[in-house]
Amino acid sequence: MNKGLLFVVSAPSGCGKGTILSEILKDDRFYYSVSSTTRSPREGEINGVSYNFLTKEQFEELISSDGMLEYAQYCDNYYGTPKEMVEKKRLEGKNVILEIEVQGAMQVKKNCSDAVLIFIMPPSVAELERRLRKRGTETDDVIAKRVAKAVEEIPFAHKYDYVVVNGELEKAVDDFKAVISAEEHKAVYARDFIDEVLENA
Amino acid sequence: MNKGLLFVVSAPSGCGKGTILSEILKDDRFYYSVSSTTRSPREGEINGVSYNFLTKEQFEELISSDGMLEYAQYCDNYYGTPKEMVEKKRLEGKNVILEIEVQGAMQVKKNCSDAVLIFIMPPSVAELERRLRKRGTETDDVIAKRVAKAVEEIPFAHKYDYVVVNGELEKAVDDFKAVISAEEHKAVYARDFIDEVLENA
Repeated sequence: MNKGLLFVVSAPSGCGKGTILSEILKDDRFYYSVSSTTRSPREGEINGVSYNFLTKEQFEELISSDGMLEYAQYCDNYYGTPKEMVEKKRLEGKNVILEIEVQGAMQVKKNCSDAVLIFIMPPSVAELERRLRKRGTETDDVIAKRVAKAVEEIPFAHKYDYVVVNGELEKAVDDFKAVISAEEHKAVYARDFIDEVLENA
Repeated sequence: MNKGLLFVVSAPSGCGKGTILSEILKDDRFYYSVSSTTRSPREGEINGVSYNFLTKEQFEELISSDGMLEYAQYCDNYYGTPKEMVEKKRLEGKNVILEIEVQGAMQVKKNCSDAVLIFIMPPSVAELERRLRKRGTETDDVIAKRVAKAVEEIPFAHKYDYVVVNGELEKAVDDFKAVISAEEHKAVYARDFIDEVLENA
């Protein structure tokens, strides 16, 4: 059995990343990696589902033992991805999906040369703003901040392996699945199969 | 408009490469590159369809002016792919498909760093032999030679970018199309789009 692949997915808020990933995760060959954090659980958040809630000591111990695939600090709290679970799931043959921000994605790229980075883009910033407004849940101020953040994040798309544009959801899901399929068909993962075919020839 | 991609496809005889490519070529975004040769046309062969028939002088002039993407000599005749047409079609935005043998594919890989190499494998050598026999057109001797050649070619699959196994035709075509789609979604080809989104933000 081949080791599972590691897909790192980033997207500005409002790009439909969650909807695309929920389609991908219907296939149980995939494992969604839950982030770890030292911030306190909010009401309704479940440990291991929303986040893995760690103490500051536990998190810093992971950092100092090179146990984090990526991490960052916001407002005095740590957020990140411990290597152990990602590696365990990959060894079980699962494709692991990491949904993280651009800075974290850049760290994973550095720490894990075979990670596959996918950036989901909106068709335009105007369309992104329209979608955020359509939700009707955020104030103009919050929407303006999200749009500004998107404009900061989009230039990082260059540094990813693949860019998928979510213009039409079904097409974006197909494009995303094509990237996964192609990565699984890389010759480097066919070594055992090639050897097997030759041994039985 | 982005430049078209260059796909190099190799497969042992009997792998269903022709059938897979005929499915891909239904899409007119693709251009099938016809090989050039110095051998004489056989009855029924049409210049520009079966091969581009060149004189030995024309072919050697292309070689000496670095005009060949790949070439080889068999039985005193040259076979190969001039760079010019491939480049012209790519600049028109067409994805060019080159169906060539492993030695030629290795030359293209060296001469053209953005070429995408795909190797089509049989599920097993026994299945390949079964398919060759099923055709009922070749003698045992010819079949034995083709199987032996396949066993020589299969180890080169390692050196390709992708390996697609033709166990079931429909699946193989889907896998092949996924490779094409993923390559088109490489971030390197999204540069203009990213810039455009940011300019209009």
